[in-house]
Formats: sequence, C-alpha cells, structure tokens
Amino acid sequence: MSPKPLELHPDRLFPADPAVRKIARELYEEEQKHPIISPHGHVPPQWLADNEPFTDPTTMLLTPDHYTNRILHSVAGVELKDLGVPVGSPMTPEKSREAWRLFCKNWWVFRGTAVQFWFESEFYDVFGIRVRPSEETADEIYDQINEALTTEEFLPRSLYHRFNLAVLATTDDPCDDLKYHKQLADDPSWDGRVIPTFRPDAYLEPARATFKELTEKLGETADQDVSTYAGHVEAMRKRRLYFKEHGAVSSDHSHRDPGTARLSDSEAENLYSQALAGKISPEDGDRLRRHMINDQARLATEDGLVMTMHPAVYRNHDEQAFADYGADVGGDIPIKVEYTRNLQPMLTEYGNHPNFQLVAFTMDQDVFQRELAALAGYYRSVYVGAPWWFIDDADAITRYREQVTPYGTFYKTSGMIDDTRAFASIPARHDVARRVDAGYLARLVAEHRLDMDVALEIAADLVSTIPSRAFKVNG
Amino acid sequence: MSPKPLELHPDRLFPADPAVRKIARELYEEEQKHPIISPHGHVPPQWLADNEPFTDPTTMLLTPDHYTNRILHSVAGVELKDLGVPVGSPMTPEKSREAWRLFCKNWWVFRGTAVQFWFESEFYDVFGIRVRPSEETADEIYDQINEALTTEEFLPRSLYHRFNLAVLATTDDPCDDLKYHKQLADDPSWDGRVIPTFRPDAYLEPARATFKELTEKLGETADQDVSTYAGHVEAMRKRRLYFKEHGAVSSDHSHRDPGTARLSDSEAENLYSQALAGKISPEDGDRLRRHMINDQARLATEDGLVMTMHPAVYRNHDEQAFADYGADVGGDIPIKVEYTRNLQPMLTEYGNHPNFQLVAFTMDQDVFQRELAALAGYYRSVYVGAPWWFIDDADAITRYREQVTPYGTFYKTSGMIDDTRAFASIPARHDVARRVDAGYLARLVAEHRLDMDVALEIAADLVSTIPSRAFKVNG
Amino acid sequence: MSPKPLELHPDRLFPADPAVRKIARELYEEEQKHPIISPHGHVPPQWLADNEPFTDPTTMLLTPDHYTNRILHSVAGVELKDLGVPVGSPMTPEKSREAWRLFCKNWWVFRGTAVQFWFESEFYDVFGIRVRPSEETADEIYDQINEALTTEEFLPRSLYHRFNLAVLATTDDPCDDLKYHKQLADDPSWDGRVIPTFRPDAYLEPARATFKELTEKLGETADQDVSTYAGHVEAMRKRRLYFKEHGAVSSDHSHRDPGTARLSDSEAENLYSQALAGKISPEDGDRLRRHMINDQARLATEDGLVMTMHPAVYRNHDEQAFADYGADVGGDIPIKVEYTRNLQPMLTEYGNHPNFQLVAFTMDQDVFQRELAALAGYYRSVYVGAPWWFIDDADAITRYREQVTPYGTFYKTSGMIDDTRAFASIPARHDVARRVDAGYLARLVAEHRLDMDVALEIAADLVSTIPSRAFKVNG
Repeated sequence: MSPKPLELHPDRLFPADPAVRKIARELYEEEQKHPIISPHGHVPPQWLADNEPFTDPTTMLLTPDHYTNRILHSVAGVELKDLGVPVGSPMTPEKSREAWRLFCKNWWVFRGTAVQFWFESEFYDVFGIRVRPSEETADEIYDQINEALTTEEFLPRSLYHRFNLAVLATTDDPCDDLKYHKQLADDPSWDGRVIPTFRPDAYLEPARATFKELTEKLGETADQDVSTYAGHVEAMRKRRLYFKEHGAVSSDHSHRDPGTARLSDSEAENLYSQALAGKISPEDGDRLRRHMINDQARLATEDGLVMTMHPAVYRNHDEQAFADYGADVGGDIPIKVEYTRNLQPMLTEYGNHPNFQLVAFTMDQDVFQRELAALAGYYRSVYVGAPWWFIDDADAITRYREQVTPYGTFYKTSGMIDDTRAFASIPARHDVARRVDAGYLARLVAEHRLDMDVALEIAADLVSTIPSRAFKVNG
Repeated sequence: MSPKPLELHPDRLFPADPAVRKIARELYEEEQKHPIISPHGHVPPQWLADNEPFTDPTTMLLTPDHYTNRILHSVAGVELKDLGVPVGSPMTPEKSREAWRLFCKNWWVFRGTAVQFWFESEFYDVFGIRVRPSEETADEIYDQINEALTTEEFLPRSLYHRFNLAVLATTDDPCDDLKYHKQLADDPSWDGRVIPTFRPDAYLEPARATFKELTEKLGETADQDVSTYAGHVEAMRKRRLYFKEHGAVSSDHSHRDPGTARLSDSEAENLYSQALAGKISPEDGDRLRRHMINDQARLATEDGLVMTMHPAVYRNHDEQAFADYGADVGGDIPIKVEYTRNLQPMLTEYGNHPNFQLVAFTMDQDVFQRELAALAGYYRSVYVGAPWWFIDDADAITRYREQVTPYGTFYKTSGMIDDTRAFASIPARHDVARRVDAGYLARLVAEHRLDMDVALEIAADLVSTIPSRAFKVNG
Repeated sequence: MSPKPLELHPDRLFPADPAVRKIARELYEEEQKHPIISPHGHVPPQWLADNEPFTDPTTMLLTPDHYTNRILHSVAGVELKDLGVPVGSPMTPEKSREAWRLFCKNWWVFRGTAVQFWFESEFYDVFGIRVRPSEETADEIYDQINEALTTEEFLPRSLYHRFNLAVLATTDDPCDDLKYHKQLADDPSWDGRVIPTFRPDAYLEPARATFKELTEKLGETADQDVSTYAGHVEAMRKRRLYFKEHGAVSSDHSHRDPGTARLSDSEAENLYSQALAGKISPEDGDRLRRHMINDQARLATEDGLVMTMHPAVYRNHDEQAFADYGADVGGDIPIKVEYTRNLQPMLTEYGNHPNFQLVAFTMDQDVFQRELAALAGYYRSVYVGAPWWFIDDADAITRYREQVTPYGTFYKTSGMIDDTRAFASIPARHDVARRVDAGYLARLVAEHRLDMDVALEIAADLVSTIPSRAFKVNG
C-alpha cells in the first residue's frame, strides 16, 4: 500500500458554513498582507547570531518541544530520554533517527491536537513533505528534512526571512550580557530584528535556596551594592535599562500567583535581610516577592518596559521526571488563578499611568471574561494576553475572542504570542491564530454584528497595530 | 467621501446557517407578540413621574452609562469628567457637544462589543439615525437627537409606551418614601406600571462606618425601636411591607459573597450591639450580614417579595477614580462566586417554601451549570438569573442557555433583566436576548431536539410567563 | 384533537449544516458497528441474575431516576413521595398509574433537557411508543409499557442483549459477597458479562459515626484483624482481590475532595486509633481519608484495578428531604474541584506506574482543560472521565471534547459512562454520546483538521479500544 499523502487544505480551520467561510477567506487574505510580530518566545538568540545549520531533525524539531514530548510520553509510553531530553544531551545520528521513528510510528497520538496541526504545516510548508508520518514513512521524512538542513535555505537567518518575521523577541536572564543580541546589532549583513526580554523570575523568589547567590550575581553584574532591598531595586533598575538599551520592550514574570501587595519599606528591608540570611519563611518569601513585583511595575513606569505576567503553573509536578531531566520537560500543570484581588494594589496605583502596560496571560480560561476583560475594559494599562501554552489550540482561541471581545474589546488584547522554542513552528502557530481570528470575525459579519469594511480593518489591526501597541514594538 | 450609512439587518444576531436562521426568524416573531417585562433596573422613577424632556444627548445617553464610559476611558484614553461623570455634574450645551464628539470620534473602540450593538439599535430605531458615528458625523447625530428630545414623542412616558413596556421596576432605598411611584399611581392620565424594588444593601453591612447612621434612619422611617437586632428585623419587615403596598415585587441584594449562615439569636444580638457601637470586626460584620440575609429570606416567606442576589463584585477597584468620581463609574470588577455552600443554610430552610423565591445572578459564568442549574433543578424557590452586567452580550446569553437548560430547564430561569440606567437602551437590550434565545431554540429545532410547535411555545413563554412567574409580576 | 405524534429524527443531535451532518452520519454508522461498553453504572445485579419481569412502569422508569424526580419536584412542584421515592417504598397499581400521570401531565418541564431526549429514545425505541407524553396520553402510554413488561422480550436479560451490551459494570459494597455475580457466572444459559465494581467510600471516612461499625464488618468479611491501620489496608487488599476474582476491573471513589496526601505511618496509625475510638476531628478524618486513598492507589499498582474518582459533590444539600427520603433523591449539588494540587502526592509516586490507571471524573467543567487534560497529557496513568451526572447532556459532551482533545487527546479519555440506575436508558445515553462525538469529529473533518479516514478510525476507537483500554475491560 502506498503511504497516505499529506495535504493542507487552503480553507483549514475556517468555519464549515460556505457563506461564513467565504468571508473568513477574505479576512485572512487581509491579515496575510502583514509580517509576523513575535514579541514573546524562547528561540535562543545564538541561533540567529551564529547562523549555524541545524544539526538534525530530532534536535531541531522534537527534543526542545515539550508539547510533543509530553503526549508521546503519556499516550504512547515513550521514554523522554529516547527523544533526546533534556536539551543538550549527547545526540548521534542513530539516536536522532531512532527518536524520529518513535515519533512517526506514534503519529496517531496527536490526532485532533494542536501539535498535529503545527507539524503538518511545518512539514508541508517549510520542508515540502508530502507523505503522512507513519512507521513506514519515518525514514523518508527524516532524510528529506535532514538533507534540507544542510542547505543555505534552511539556515536560521534564511528561515527568519522566509517566515516573514518583523520582530522576534527572546527571553533572557537579567545578568545576561546579551552578547548575541549585540553580535546581531553589529552585523551589517543582518537586517532582521531580534530583541531580548528581561526575565527576572528566579531573582524575585526570596525563599528559594538560590536567592543569595543570584542576588550577589545581580549586584556584581549591575555594579551595585545589594545588601539592602533598596539596593536590590536599584540593581534591577540598572539591568532593566541595560536590556532596554539593547532593544528590549518588555519584562516577563511567572510566579505561582499574580499578587502585587506592597509591604512597608521597613518590612520589606527586614524580610530582605532574612532572605539573604536564608531564614525567610515560604509565606514571607511570597509576600516579599509580591512587593518586588509591585516595584517592577514602578520601575516600568520609569523605563516603559511592558510587563507581562503568566502565573499559576504548578512547576515540575512529577518529582521523578524533574530529578531525571530537570525543568521544562512537560511536568508543569496549570492551576486556578485569581487576578481581580491580586492585581488591585498594583493597578490602583499604576493602572492608568501613561507609561505603564501590563499584558496578563493565563492558562485558566475561567478568568478571561470574569476578570481580565473587565480589567482591560477599565484600566488603560491592562491588555489581555492571547491564549497560551495549554490553551493555544484553535477552539481555545475562538473561546478567547468570544469571552474577551464584548467588554475587553479587540483593542485591549495582546496579539498572537507563540511562546515557543520550536523555531520552525512559528509560522504555523501564527497561522492558526490568523485563521481562527478570521473565522471569528467572519461569524460576526455573517450575523450582521460587524460591517465587512470594519471587519477588514480589525483583521489588519489584529496582526499589526494591536500587537505593536500592546508590546510597544514600534518604540 | 460621504459618511458610511448605519444599517440594521433584520436577521442580525441570528445564526448564519440559512435553515437555522429561517427557524430563528419565526421564533423571534412569536416573541415579538409580547410586550417587554423589565423587572429589575435603575431608571429613576422621577423621569416618568415628572415626564420632563431629556436635556441633551450626553446627559441622556452617555453620562449615566458606565458600560460606555469605561471602554472610552480604557481604550481611547478619554477622561471620565469629559463625559460628564459623575452623574449630576454641571453640564453645558458646549460640554455636552464636546463629550458627544469624543464618543463619536472614538466609535471604533466599541467594535464587536455589546455596547456597539445597543447604540446602533437605539440610534436607528429610537432616533432614526442613518449614518455611522464618526468624527465627521458627530455633530449631525448630536443635532438630530437633540432636536428629537424637544418633541412630545421623546418624553419619558412617550418612550415608555413606544418601547412597549408592560412593567418597569426601579431600585430604591428602604427609607425612600416612594413619592414618585405614588405620584404615578395617583395620576389618572398614566396607564403604565412603574414599581419600586426594595434594596437594603447598605443597611445590611454592619462593619461599615455608616451602619449606625443608616440604622437610625431606618428606625425613624419605620417608627421602630432599633436598639436590638430583633428591632432591626422588625423595621425591615415594616419597610418591606411599605414597598409591597406600593407595588414592589422583589428585594435586591448585592454583597461580596452570597453567604446565608445563621448565628444563634444571642450572638446576633451581641454582634449587632458591637456594630452599633462601631466596634465590630470586618469578619464579624460579614457573619452578621449573612445572618441578616437569612432573615430577609424569612421575611420573604411572609411578605412574598422575590429575593434577588447578585454578589461577587470588587467595588471601586480603582481607588483614585472612586476618590475623584464616587461609586458606579466603571471601577467595579467581578470576582469568583460560590453558591452551593453559601446558600445551603437558607435553602435547606426555605428552599421549597411555597412563598419564597430566589433569583440568583452571577457574573461568574462558571457557576451557571455547576451550581445554579443544579440548585434551580432541585429547589422550587431557585431561579437562575439571566446573564448580567459583564456577561450580557449575545454570545454570553447563548452560553447561559447551553449551560442552564439541560438541568435547570427554561422554566427556572429569570427572563431577561436589563439592569440599566440607560432608559433608551432598554428595547435594544431585550432585543438582543430575544434574538439570541430565538437562535438557540432554532438550533435545538434544527438538531431535532425540540419540535417546532414546542419551540414556539417556549419562545412565547420566555418573554411572558417565565419572567412573570420568576418575579411574580402578575401578583 | 388527536395527540401529537412522538417522532425520532434519524439525524437528531447532528450539526445542522448539511455538509457537516453528512459526515457525522457516516461516522455514527461506524460507531454503531460496535456494542456498548458500560464500565460504570448502578443497575442492581439481581435484576440480571434473577431475570424477573419489571413490575410496572413507575417502578422501572421513574422512581429510581433522580434526574427525573428532581426536575418534577422543582419545576412542577410534584412531591417526591408521589413518584414512589424512596426506592423500595410500597407500590400499588393505582399509585404507579397516578405517578405516571403526574409525569406525563408535566412533560413540558423537560423541554430541552437531557431527560427529555433519553425518555423519547426509550419510549420510541424500547417500548414502541408513538405519541408524545401528555395528560391525555398518560394512560395509553402506561398501558402499553405495562403490557410490554409482562413479555419475555422485556425481561432484564432480553433487554441486555437487545441493548447490545458487551459488558455492564455494577457498583458494590466491599463487603458484598457478590452472590448475584456468582449466580450469573455459574449460569450456563447466561452469555452476557456483568462485573462488580469495588466501592469502598463509606469505609474510608474515618470521621463518620459509622466508621467503627463498618471497619469491624470489613475485618470480619476479610477475616483480618483491623485493630491497626496496617490491618485495615490488608483487609482492603483482600477484598479488592475478592472483587477482582469475581470480574471487577475498577474501584470507585467519591469523596468531597480528591486529596491524596500521605501521612507518616505513625501518624496514620495514631489517627486510625482515634477514629476507631470515635474521637477523630473532621479535619483529621479528612487527612486520614486522603492517606487511605493514596494507599488505594498503591494497592491498585499491585492488583491492577483501575481507580475512578468523582469528587466534589455536596451530598444531601436539602436536609429536610434527606430526613424524609434518605440519600440519592436529588439533593446533591456540585461544588468546585481542584485536581492539580490534590493529585500531586499520588501521581508523583504512581502516575507513570505501568499497573496503575486513574479515571478522573468531574462535574466541574472548569477543570477539563486547565487540569485534567494537562494531567492526562503528561501522566501515563491518567484518563479524563466522560462528562458525568449534571454535565452529561449533548452540549456538555461537545464542550468536553473541545476542552480535552487538544492536549489530553482522544486516547486519554474514558469512553462513555452512563452511571445510571435507569436500565432502560442505557442505550439512549450511549446514543447521545455517539451522536455528539460523531458531530464533533465531523466538524474537525469539515474544517480540514482531520482526514476522513482518520476520523473513521477515531470514531471506532471511541466506542471500542478507548473504553477498553481506560477500564482494562479486556483484562
């Protein structure tokens, strides 16, 4: 039996109703006139700076993609190590090919998932694959991709241009010297835009065992005495400015809750001393961390970096996998989030400040309408982050629009965020959002809730002015 | 370029599928045979009693509408004071026109929102506007409305009749003498029905600074010694009866949680004394308040007033706006609600009492199926309130039906509640509910889940017997 | 006027769009090639063992069905006792007929509910009824069913075969001797499969007044000293094995929360002593119960029984009805559930154990995507239970698929669970799930998210390999 063909229908993800689909198609064409803005993600800047070829299909497409790994692990019983996890493990051509075979053989586990859609798009559009993955086609697909990766056309910078990226943000440690960003900036042959993002999470968890060490590193990097909390804030201010000078437009914050309650200055100093002495309780560590986040907002009113938040994940839920492989291998599970009360101390102070912007993400869809749309529809600073991580599939994006638009409006949403380490999946991920948004708008037009000329303007805005405004990417 | 026309499609909000739409249209026509029942809202009774002309478009349509204000404030950066906020601020023709221009110029911010739909309906149907709002058309629209307001046809009572209202409920302080309601009752030329609603919230918050003063006012108004908690209950009983004698059919209750747990009599008296002395803790204030709510239910079993609840709002989230403008300017944000445990003490006692009815509202959609449909499908007294405030847009109404119907049934829902201060938006708001309900029913018919003759009966019931029964508006 | 006909459209529950409906029909036909697997329910095994005729329509169809009772009670004001509640109350032909008349007269209360759909299917398909229930047709329908029940064709075993059941699980007390299951096993004329389920809830609530008595009963039945907690676990191990030897494939657990946190051995023994002495606090009772659940998981790694959980119900919310009628009469109301934190202690230990499987049910839809899909998409042991009880209507099943598929996949769901005492409704309940799943898959095909050949495979899997794997029904 000859293998099943891999096909991509031009109308995929559009509503089935012929009249609505026709409208969706037209709106999608309008979106497609605009390049991709990717203001939050995890692609290593070194890839674009060094522009070395990707080594092999598994290292490029499977190992770093915890979306894929976790489903193979759960449904097909594949061991994570057999997929090359953790990132950076030694890889051989044989091991790479074996991992790829495991992936193709178990392709059925992805049926109906977001992962299936992304891979089909990548395979078809980026690599020109025309057969469906299966045990029989594994080697053929592997060889085709492997060969492609040796060509000029598949170097990171070539892909950046081919993907029609206008800007690509990375995520970086506050003490990073941003050398790859500088290397790109200093390279006259490079005309793309890769910008860093200030991510100080680890430095804002006073009850963790690493707090003292990280604080000292921060102090050294910033050339700042950090023996007091005031000094810690000052060091943060300096590093934020350093990032801003190197192109950053936002800072990124992920803690277990989005609390922002302030302490008195003296209590903050007192708890900070305890933290440096390794004697702070977990509860007080949380309280000091919330105060620190509030101070990050204050710093943002000065330097203008957009603050993004994505709280409420139980990290490393599987302690055994964490012991074996470390963080970010799929053992993170969402928990409930509460935004209304948690953000109140920060928003009542900075919520309408002309220089402050907050993009609030969630994996708890429950808060889109009840909390985030209401906050975004009142506070000038608040933008509702696109559905993210476990809720970035097509139907979830539709629900997001249905929940946020009525009181949060299109114009207080963040634009699509791909949030990915999987570089080759960026166009596919944005394509899903564009198609789904086109379908949502098409329904509003078909139900006579929007005029077509207005819908066309919104379609263009959703991929241009809206993300640009939310992330200040035009400065 | 000539301005874009404003058009209202006769099939707006109906499902796009042609066969389903045809069914929806027929069901909608059935609904339209019935007048509007508006059993909960915020229109001042004085408007209908005095029947004075509205002064200007901004005062009538923008200033009192916090839905509109908050989006203009958030998305377009308009200052609330430039829209005449707070209600009652001095207004001049120039200021009114300027506010109107701000509104029209920023019309784009409402794209896809519920506010857009309401205004388009009001403009087209009530005022005969035929151009889309924009910077260019602002003055033309302003002048057309302003001129209309000087005519007999746009007096409050004329609009009441033109809107085909069968009954309009207002919301009133327990100590209000209801003089405007009496004025209407005594006016032989008035054949409408405007009824008061007993809203004692402020009097049931023992930990607030105003509690003693309000209690004294209540005692005086009711001519009742309120030095004991028993006396407080007796004063409430008298005022409820006073309202009932003046046409009230319901009492309305909005606190941060829907708790109804009882205290012992002695503890209630003890906490009440502390409250009058200004010495009660916030926690004990909440406990006494929950006991008071339980007693309101007991009073309701005697006087038969329907109890409505709409808890779980963080009032005045933006402290600065509250300081500048006072309450109700848009700074209220929903929070989670819990009904199953909170209502248990009250429902286990009165939940099947023949004289008791509870309409439970929420802005937390999460409880529609999990808690409210289950409660309404078991307890005779419980009705599920229509989606309200931040969840009154078209798609939210569909979700409400999908969540509540399977175990709560159509017949334990409240009927549409407009809950509005914006008098001219009442027909549009009910029209949205009617169209969406018609679309939902049409889908059930198209999927062969309801026969068409039954769906037609339900459509009529939804706008007649169902709200009449839930709110006892026929006595 | 002649009575309205009762009709069942062959396309009921399929999407209205003609193209999508056509696909759904084809997928449904694929599903229909497979018998019904019913791995969790409440049909008494005695019915099939003794194979006695059902006595009358009310006893068979109304009295044991709390779904129906609660709506008649709530919306139509019917008294539960007039429907024969509680199960086992004395019944006469007159009382049975009167109850039936109440039901038919108030048929309107079920409009649009899941209950309506099931009854229409049962009436039409099982009993050949061709008139719609109403006051006028009550006696005619009663007589027709009553007469049918006297025939061979309507004996329990005949219905089992006619319903095309491959396996039917009952729910049984740990101390049950399973005599009816043995009777069936020993009957050479019986070729069906009725298997017990181990349900130890009552024995795992150390703070209940009945704990000591039940523990002693457990000890006697297992012939095991239960004076220590270790002995209690050993007794459980023995009874689980007894059930397994008699065909059980799963144990079933319903407590107020799904907590699984372990205690130290010494604390467990200490709390166990307090519990036996009747001196344990409710809080400590909960802590010991969570430890016991964790131990049930450990036992499951040994004996391989699948663990099912359905927590988060407020049992007997209406204390008066509980006093009058006992449990299970409709006074249970869902509450919120939290799975991510609660399951962590158990899953980090056994979550990827090759012998352990957990099917997690919920009536809190909120957790399908946020928690359960994420857990099932990572841990090998976790399966997402089908929507259940208050969320088993058609639209809820669609939402379940939309929420779970993207990251939990089709292959980590449980398959349909009817969970019912209403034997005659089993085919109708499974038919709803099959039709809705076909409609969901059809949409994915129409939107070019799945190829048709793959969708056909999934459709078959959903009713065969998927429930078989989740419940290990093939051993």
